[in-house]
Amino acid sequence: MSKKNKLRIIPLGGLGEVGKNMMAYEFGNDIIVVDAGIMFPDNDMLGVDYIIPDFEYLVKKASHVRALIITHGHEDHIGAIQHFIEQINVPIYATPLTRGLIEGKLSRNNAQHKANIKTVQAGESTHIGPFKIEYFHISHSIPDSVGLGITTPAGLVVHMSDFKFDHTPVDGWPTDFAKLSEFSMRGVDLLLSDSTNAERPGWTPSESVIGPAFDKVFAEAKGRVIVATFASLISRVQQVADAAAKSGRKMALAGPSMVDNVKIARKLKYLEIPDELIVPIEQAGNMPDHKVVIMCTGSQGEPSSIVGRLSAGTNRQFGLKPNDTVVLSSHPIPGNEESISKTINRLLRQGANVIHDGIAPVHVSGHAAQEEQKLLINLVRPKHFMPIHGELRQLKRHADLAKQVGIEEANIIVVENGQVVELVGNKILLGERIPGDYVFVDGESIGDIDHDIMKERGQLARNGILLIDISLDKFSGKLLHEPEILTRGFVTPAEAETLLPEIRKRVMQAVNGGDMDNEKEIVSTIKSYLHQETKRRPMVFVTLSKT
Amino acid sequence: MSKKNKLRIIPLGGLGEVGKNMMAYEFGNDIIVVDAGIMFPDNDMLGVDYIIPDFEYLVKKASHVRALIITHGHEDHIGAIQHFIEQINVPIYATPLTRGLIEGKLSRNNAQHKANIKTVQAGESTHIGPFKIEYFHISHSIPDSVGLGITTPAGLVVHMSDFKFDHTPVDGWPTDFAKLSEFSMRGVDLLLSDSTNAERPGWTPSESVIGPAFDKVFAEAKGRVIVATFASLISRVQQVADAAAKSGRKMALAGPSMVDNVKIARKLKYLEIPDELIVPIEQAGNMPDHKVVIMCTGSQGEPSSIVGRLSAGTNRQFGLKPNDTVVLSSHPIPGNEESISKTINRLLRQGANVIHDGIAPVHVSGHAAQEEQKLLINLVRPKHFMPIHGELRQLKRHADLAKQVGIEEANIIVVENGQVVELVGNKILLGERIPGDYVFVDGESIGDIDHDIMKERGQLARNGILLIDISLDKFSGKLLHEPEILTRGFVTPAEAETLLPEIRKRVMQAVNGGDMDNEKEIVSTIKSYLHQETKRRPMVFVTLSKT
Repeated sequence: MSKKNKLRIIPLGGLGEVGKNMMAYEFGNDIIVVDAGIMFPDNDMLGVDYIIPDFEYLVKKASHVRALIITHGHEDHIGAIQHFIEQINVPIYATPLTRGLIEGKLSRNNAQHKANIKTVQAGESTHIGPFKIEYFHISHSIPDSVGLGITTPAGLVVHMSDFKFDHTPVDGWPTDFAKLSEFSMRGVDLLLSDSTNAERPGWTPSESVIGPAFDKVFAEAKGRVIVATFASLISRVQQVADAAAKSGRKMALAGPSMVDNVKIARKLKYLEIPDELIVPIEQAGNMPDHKVVIMCTGSQGEPSSIVGRLSAGTNRQFGLKPNDTVVLSSHPIPGNEESISKTINRLLRQGANVIHDGIAPVHVSGHAAQEEQKLLINLVRPKHFMPIHGELRQLKRHADLAKQVGIEEANIIVVENGQVVELVGNKILLGERIPGDYVFVDGESIGDIDHDIMKERGQLARNGILLIDISLDKFSGKLLHEPEILTRGFVTPAEAETLLPEIRKRVMQAVNGGDMDNEKEIVSTIKSYLHQETKRRPMVFVTLSKT
Repeated sequence: MSKKNKLRIIPLGGLGEVGKNMMAYEFGNDIIVVDAGIMFPDNDMLGVDYIIPDFEYLVKKASHVRALIITHGHEDHIGAIQHFIEQINVPIYATPLTRGLIEGKLSRNNAQHKANIKTVQAGESTHIGPFKIEYFHISHSIPDSVGLGITTPAGLVVHMSDFKFDHTPVDGWPTDFAKLSEFSMRGVDLLLSDSTNAERPGWTPSESVIGPAFDKVFAEAKGRVIVATFASLISRVQQVADAAAKSGRKMALAGPSMVDNVKIARKLKYLEIPDELIVPIEQAGNMPDHKVVIMCTGSQGEPSSIVGRLSAGTNRQFGLKPNDTVVLSSHPIPGNEESISKTINRLLRQGANVIHDGIAPVHVSGHAAQEEQKLLINLVRPKHFMPIHGELRQLKRHADLAKQVGIEEANIIVVENGQVVELVGNKILLGERIPGDYVFVDGESIGDIDHDIMKERGQLARNGILLIDISLDKFSGKLLHEPEILTRGFVTPAEAETLLPEIRKRVMQAVNGGDMDNEKEIVSTIKSYLHQETKRRPMVFVTLSKT
């Protein structure tokens, strides 16, 4: 087979989940991109709002990029579209609900005019350059999700995005098993599959288990019920609406993204909620508590979310009441456990009742567990297998599962973001590594924060700073006045009272004694003194003016 | 009953686990203190090494404090003893192994001479002022743990520290059911019990399930096995030794606290490890890989631990080899999930195999789950119940369990640290709140870091700093030279190249134009400019000298 028949598979981003936020498929001079999402920062990524994948590789080949294909409407798959189309403005392919959510998000950021979106339906296919893309329905925690069958001259690739095999999903539309079998009969050269739950044994429960749990909570709650989840967890909104109707409560929505998304999903008929069930949040405030459900964001304990503000007592639109029942309808994203726990404690401290997935099945995962992952592999029977959507620990486990169900070890490839994989001559090979990392977004700065800055922030944060301002007479070299010292994040006022005069004295002695006449020497002397006294190492800055 | 018959129960510390690190019982002019441990900082407690409870209340009443009683040898129960006895040097009561571990820890900090430790055995009792204290054995993940029966004129209190009902513990010594039943027959006025796993249904598996899991891992590992756990998890060391012997491997210990603790526990016969099974770590380096087990610390992903350094490639004593199997024999402490995950990924990236409790039962919890918690309450049948050793979310769940098994709601009291509880006249009441919080330890500074400092560190960390040094002619008010600007954690060198000259220009224009002649005005102008340009808010400092 000719070397020209080479499909390059490129997962983009940093050391997080592989290919979750962006993947590229490159064949000759044509590139299609799958998904453009954001990631949330780790706890040690100080001051970062969110992260997008570094797609410099694609920018350099922008004239080759033909399309951006979006598998579903979650933030980690659509959140970076705005940044992407600013640099590579190609047509975007998405199913109707996904399209609606993308448009809603872009319009909240005043960028809707920039996007050229084409609607596709599960079951349809599009031809883009050498790629034939078949969209097929997969069930996930948001309706209208698709997987992709990508036929190229190098072979047939099945790209499963986030999925589970829910036989009784909220929207009644299970994963398209027939299509997967059909691919299998055609012969699949490479399967890429969701590794999120590769460490979880068994089978992820159906979303339908949540209904009865909600019914019970709604019936037993004496006051209001406040349900927090992601604004894009559209299926959950349907379940809350159903439970509200059954329990004789009205539903109010809080938060712009929640209000927007529900409006879009109702308009597009992905949510069936009668008008009379929904009341404006202001009206809900005047209704008896046991007649009210409020649906809002903040299930991850984000301080700026509605539940975050409720827990801190700083929500303006409405406050928490002692009889409220707060339902956190989600599972902690790894790294958020601590802030969620603090939020739960704060809510309890105010007298609210809190229900989370550790207490009742008010949430189930949207991702396939091990038995489903094995079933997928057996349904598709691919020649090659590449686990995606997980960190290395999940990818390795997923690779083990593939081995267990009979994929040859040599045909399984585990890589991290930035490592190109090549499908060529019926073989799967490692290609080159491309530069590729996280791009940190902080304020309006995209990519102006790098790992060095993060390191400096870590240093500032660990021990604080100490500034010394020294003015010398340029003729005598003597101090013109006492050094001025300022600290932040270093010592309490009480400790400063004893420490600072001592520093001042040492600087004065040294400078006037002629021992030190440059900033570097002073910094190093003061640093060793501080470490000796406090065993801490603040950043020390000296401004020295000779006049 | 006289008001004088009042027992005051005082959990000390901040908004963490209640009474975990320190509890006080006060009756009239006599106080006994139970445990003196440390906590590890939350992710947002920047630059803090560890936390101890604020025991200022006890310091003020130091002449009333009669004893410090230690329930078991884990860090969160013994780690603050050194700080405690520096201020309140009372006799310490501990069982033999606990005593050994305390002495080991104090001697590593050169403080062993300060402690007056009295050995007590499970089954014995001591009289201290109005308190009769009966020590009874409880099983936990460390041998020689005790619960306390505290008889006072106000009634009989049973204080369960960390415990589980393991029927087949590693040391063959289960919780003393008979003693609990005997208390029950006498009539227990108040039970305080471990809430750690109050959200976990069922029954915590016995430590004995770990043995077969280790056997399998040790037999299948092609190269070395490196087992990481807490240095104080003495029972786990026995299990590793047993599995090593069975698989024909020798065991080496790495890390001073691990080496020390094993030495102490072997000397006291709490560990049965034949001499020939143990080899020095240097010798292990010269043996065939499949003949070696290394036992070390770092199961929580701590960067400075041995596994942390192995994952980063910075461990001096020995490095990681591609065929190594690393076993993390512990469960993530809440808040550590992210750093553990990163450590696992780093180990895998170097080619090691990693086994953790999500893959095989190489760890079980040391704490009672719901069914055990209910069993304890039914065994003891107390009049009153107070959940301890948990955050509010666990305490509330534990209180629910107590209600389920028939404790009257009015007789259950849920409080957080700093809230005094009073047992008086056969009733349980809220007392006053005492000042009490975390005390942060950073370097050698104890309590010199407070919440304000932490807040400043957060500000420094989120956006970095910008310093401007301005020298003015004191007669003309004009700049003597261009302002000098320095940043840390704010902008990349590339961004600084365009931003800094602009700031310099603005400062010069404003100062020379006479618009600004004080630091405050300059700071505020520059801050708004920076926010407008970058949407970020670094801390801005101006040093202005007029000469």
